[in-house]
Amino acid sequence: MKIAMIGLGKMGGNMSKKLIEKGHEVVVYDTNSQLRKEFESIGAKSLENIEALCKEAEKGNIDIIWSMLPAGEITKNIILDISIRCRESKIIIDGGNSFYKDTIRLEKEVRNNGHTLIDAGTSGGIWGLEKGYCLMVGGDKSSYEFIKPVLSDLSEPTGGYEYMGPSGSGHFVKMVHNGIEYAMMEAFGEGFEILKEKKEFDLNLEKISKVWQSGSVIDSWLLELCGDLFEKEGNLEGIKGYVEDSGEGRWTVIESIEGRIAAPVITLSLLQRFRSRRDETFSDKVIAGLRKQFGGHAVKTKEGG
Amino acid sequence: MKIAMIGLGKMGGNMSKKLIEKGHEVVVYDTNSQLRKEFESIGAKSLENIEALCKEAEKGNIDIIWSMLPAGEITKNIILDISIRCRESKIIIDGGNSFYKDTIRLEKEVRNNGHTLIDAGTSGGIWGLEKGYCLMVGGDKSSYEFIKPVLSDLSEPTGGYEYMGPSGSGHFVKMVHNGIEYAMMEAFGEGFEILKEKKEFDLNLEKISKVWQSGSVIDSWLLELCGDLFEKEGNLEGIKGYVEDSGEGRWTVIESIEGRIAAPVITLSLLQRFRSRRDETFSDKVIAGLRKQFGGHAVKTKEGG
Repeated sequence: MKIAMIGLGKMGGNMSKKLIEKGHEVVVYDTNSQLRKEFESIGAKSLENIEALCKEAEKGNIDIIWSMLPAGEITKNIILDISIRCRESKIIIDGGNSFYKDTIRLEKEVRNNGHTLIDAGTSGGIWGLEKGYCLMVGGDKSSYEFIKPVLSDLSEPTGGYEYMGPSGSGHFVKMVHNGIEYAMMEAFGEGFEILKEKKEFDLNLEKISKVWQSGSVIDSWLLELCGDLFEKEGNLEGIKGYVEDSGEGRWTVIESIEGRIAAPVITLSLLQRFRSRRDETFSDKVIAGLRKQFGGHAVKTKEGG
Repeated sequence: MKIAMIGLGKMGGNMSKKLIEKGHEVVVYDTNSQLRKEFESIGAKSLENIEALCKEAEKGNIDIIWSMLPAGEITKNIILDISIRCRESKIIIDGGNSFYKDTIRLEKEVRNNGHTLIDAGTSGGIWGLEKGYCLMVGGDKSSYEFIKPVLSDLSEPTGGYEYMGPSGSGHFVKMVHNGIEYAMMEAFGEGFEILKEKKEFDLNLEKISKVWQSGSVIDSWLLELCGDLFEKEGNLEGIKGYVEDSGEGRWTVIESIEGRIAAPVITLSLLQRFRSRRDETFSDKVIAGLRKQFGGHAVKTKEGG
């Protein structure tokens, strides 16, 4: 098919490569001209701006416009811009980690402008190029049927794709996926810390991750990555325990609160990430101070006294 | 090799079958005579009591004695009994989920009685027969080398085995494995609840588990089991949300407390299991009552008023 990819970052770049490999006609757009040139050299046509992209689309040279940009204003503005500029009706796919409520709102606007917006939650990270992406798709069902050949090619050899439901449901399912991912990562983190702290056994974390990959109940792709991590980085002396988050975990927790659903472990996994970013909390200072107040317990001072 | 298996439950039974298939000479012991007969019919020799087992061992008809009994007194008593009765030095393997501190104590007694105790934490559940078991082994290294052919056969085709360290370390690593498992299961539980509660999307949990198995970051064996579960049981109308635990999670949490290691998500996953076993908690009654006390908030009475 004829696909325009917007955004040539880690995800959009690899997806474009995969689509070119699979024989699709790929047109790319990114603000980084160096990246554009790189993709021209491997067979993509590149465009300098959204105007040019819309002209191509109107000429019939683009069937699908796939946006793979960071969630938020950037994605929203570009998709709206396209939906206003393009006079030929197109299927626009948002493959980013957009908040599903934003997607539902944006879909209506895009529809009013005469186009179709499909949300495609995409998992697989930098491994998707090799292993195939996992695509969770929401929106108009007949448009989903139309883009299936592209989804299928992106998912090869071991990935998959599936229709989830109405607009926003693809991003919703991807959001919860990431919430689960946070808790699974925290589970492994805590488990390996308990193992590492057991000095008298002097355990080898790499060996353990690898034997657990062989027939154990917790065998998983994340565990495979743990094995690679300990193999490359030993006991992680070179890594700082500072953990970022990118929104989906927060939205999952907000969703659970809005729905009055207790999701304590997913919630706590998010909070642990917040905690990881501070060397010290004011909360702990309050508690240390209070212990001194009521019990005369010694406090450490800033000078380490 | 010549192996005596003690305990023909779900684990010991399947492991005996696997060892017989692999051409080992398997002698079985279980208090259930029906089970003994069943294993005789597939090529095992069966024994009626520990005395008979020790006689066989003394005759040189048993190289390894593998105990696959529930953790606790039963395991301890039988292993001690064997170590006292058998006059020929043997390798005894505890493949159950024994508490690692019990194992360390028992190993000393067994050694004083002239035998060797090896701990082999075993994961794989009822799937081990087909997929191969995952074995985490602790204790005397040269005994580990001696039993390797048996470990190797039990782990085929996709399982694995590995030497962890001194006595108790196999059970310790298996214990932490189960702690991680609790948190992973809780993560999936919470995630699927959030998905199910999103009525407006009317999501299909079976489809979701299956697409997540295809290239997503949370792909795992537990997720595969989720897919099978939703396929067989729909939205689980037939299952009560009452979750048992079998000790390893509790021990992992105690270990984290003794080591002053924060493992909040593993801990909370255990607590959620406790909570699942009560329809109502006294704690919640106290809170409901207090809200009425200070704010005049209505309380529900037992009659539903």
